[in-house]
Amino acid sequence: MKFSCEKSLLQSAISTAMRTAATKSVIPSLEGLLIEAMPDKVFITGFDLKTGIKTALPSDTAETGSIVINSRLFGEIIRKLPDDVVNIETDDNMAVNITCGMSRFDIIGISADDYPDLPSVDYDNSIYLPEKTMKEMISQTIFAVSDNEARPIHTGALFEVENGELTVVAIDGYRLALRKEKISLDETNIKTFVVPGVALNEAERILSDSDSDDVKVTVGSKHITFTIGTTTLVTRRLEGEFLNYRNALPQTCKYTITAEKRDIITSVDRVSLIISDRVKSPVRFRFEDGKLKVAATTPLGRANDECPVQGDGEGLEIGFNNKYILDALRAAPADTVRLELSSGVSPCLIKPESGEGNFLYMVLPVRLKNEG
Amino acid sequence: MKFSCEKSLLQSAISTAMRTAATKSVIPSLEGLLIEAMPDKVFITGFDLKTGIKTALPSDTAETGSIVINSRLFGEIIRKLPDDVVNIETDDNMAVNITCGMSRFDIIGISADDYPDLPSVDYDNSIYLPEKTMKEMISQTIFAVSDNEARPIHTGALFEVENGELTVVAIDGYRLALRKEKISLDETNIKTFVVPGVALNEAERILSDSDSDDVKVTVGSKHITFTIGTTTLVTRRLEGEFLNYRNALPQTCKYTITAEKRDIITSVDRVSLIISDRVKSPVRFRFEDGKLKVAATTPLGRANDECPVQGDGEGLEIGFNNKYILDALRAAPADTVRLELSSGVSPCLIKPESGEGNFLYMVLPVRLKNEG
Repeated sequence: MKFSCEKSLLQSAISTAMRTAATKSVIPSLEGLLIEAMPDKVFITGFDLKTGIKTALPSDTAETGSIVINSRLFGEIIRKLPDDVVNIETDDNMAVNITCGMSRFDIIGISADDYPDLPSVDYDNSIYLPEKTMKEMISQTIFAVSDNEARPIHTGALFEVENGELTVVAIDGYRLALRKEKISLDETNIKTFVVPGVALNEAERILSDSDSDDVKVTVGSKHITFTIGTTTLVTRRLEGEFLNYRNALPQTCKYTITAEKRDIITSVDRVSLIISDRVKSPVRFRFEDGKLKVAATTPLGRANDECPVQGDGEGLEIGFNNKYILDALRAAPADTVRLELSSGVSPCLIKPESGEGNFLYMVLPVRLKNEG
Repeated sequence: MKFSCEKSLLQSAISTAMRTAATKSVIPSLEGLLIEAMPDKVFITGFDLKTGIKTALPSDTAETGSIVINSRLFGEIIRKLPDDVVNIETDDNMAVNITCGMSRFDIIGISADDYPDLPSVDYDNSIYLPEKTMKEMISQTIFAVSDNEARPIHTGALFEVENGELTVVAIDGYRLALRKEKISLDETNIKTFVVPGVALNEAERILSDSDSDDVKVTVGSKHITFTIGTTTLVTRRLEGEFLNYRNALPQTCKYTITAEKRDIITSVDRVSLIISDRVKSPVRFRFEDGKLKVAATTPLGRANDECPVQGDGEGLEIGFNNKYILDALRAAPADTVRLELSSGVSPCLIKPESGEGNFLYMVLPVRLKNEG
């Protein structure tokens, strides 16, 4: 194998693909990146057997071939090279020679024969939407993906395709996050599938903020791929029955409160200072007289704050896990939000100021002790 | 105690003083900050029994008094408050009430009676120099302060005052760093003293980049203070005999090489990629034909780089700990440096391009195995 390519393109391809290389593995080649030199491009692949990323860059290839190189070492070497053309050459003994400018590195690679194949998605069921939209839908729901392996299906987010819309839903037993958006093209017969949170995390990093470039999400019987420019991310599909979330959402509410989300976040943030992992306690919300009063009491002390809201809660008190209410408010893609509440023991919905819009968050309450 | 003050000033005072509050201590008050309200200012002190910082800010004090508040909690509360006037009030039961805007915190303090006194420096022996100069002298030598507690005196830097000049020297057995500068005023009879590295580290953070404001360094029989604006840093003096560094410096050299320090740093940085804590190896310098060739060989592979230099080393080969040579080059306050060398087993001096100037670094060589 012998090729040359631009240092900056190689560096960026490595940093994309190395995210899914295994950090520790009994199979040394999984800690490496697979480098495949084709006539005019090079593919770089990282794969930890669960999630894989394969990306391409243009090259001047004198001799096609492939090898696996430790991802950390390879990434660091390329990063420190001058901004110039990098030449990479291997011999039959897996010796890898990297030169660039006055620099020369001789390291040992691993045979590409030991590297597992990326799964291929078996038939073409695809949806298309702008990269920026997909990126936002992921970042605004992923925090509610469960990390509890006892219910594996909820360690992923549900993708629902219907009527030219994609809905992404994540739940973890205490809260729900939902985002929906129009999709540009729907060529899939598979209307629901669950994508592992780990893969979504990587997809979010690779997706650009471009409105004009589409990501293609392809669903097969066992796997899902995200095709983003010259990069492909492959992940297995999670199997099992995802919660019927529609049944979990309250259909009516007694109180409707609107507020600037920034105000509530600031108040909860302050009061949270006396809550810690060691001294857990709910934050107490009390809605009255156009104000939201936020309070908490722990062994560290007592904290009170308040912010203006619109709508009367008639003195309703409800407790929340401070982290959950903050996550939902921070994720909500709106400055002004509507809180729908009924009682201190029923869920709180966070919605757009008016109408149903394109997001919905639900946070379950935490029982309060009877002390104001 | 009852006072009010500007949130931003209080926040900055806390972040300065909390650096020397103990992070973990069997004496709870040492994990706190001492707050002392005087008629028109408040002092905030952090002290871990070795190093102490006391700083002042203007206040509107209704009732003088003092209390100790946990530094982490206090710092976080003040940081999250709105940019407004903060009111702090305590009662006889050590309850502390902090209010600002719509926020109110009630926490429990600790009696100031339990807080140790900062040592006072017993007589006035002071030198003065611009804050910026002191800051640079510290940052350009502190890396060579030893962390080996077996020779406590070398865990500090030597301050030498002579002929209107201050010389700061740090050594750790493998290298030496020396910086000297004129001082603006010398009122001390104590011509040499050793300041603990830990205290220098804190002093460096507090010192500003101001050319026009002087820091006052006061030396007593047991303690040293740095007075920086309204902030005082107190540390104990290290006792013992500091190495007679003049005797350790080679007086002659065989080869004189000048080079852009950036070039050498870049080359050593690259070659260092195949050196790690697990696979230690010296970097090999070879001076010939107007070039410095840098190389290293470890189980990870072989790396070679080169950069242009002026002066002939006649093929001289010398090995270094890569970290030590990088530290010295990075610290040297000059773009072009002069390396003075004699053989592969004698120290390398790093000096200004010409003359003796205001800095000197020495790095001892590491024996090379006989393989090019």
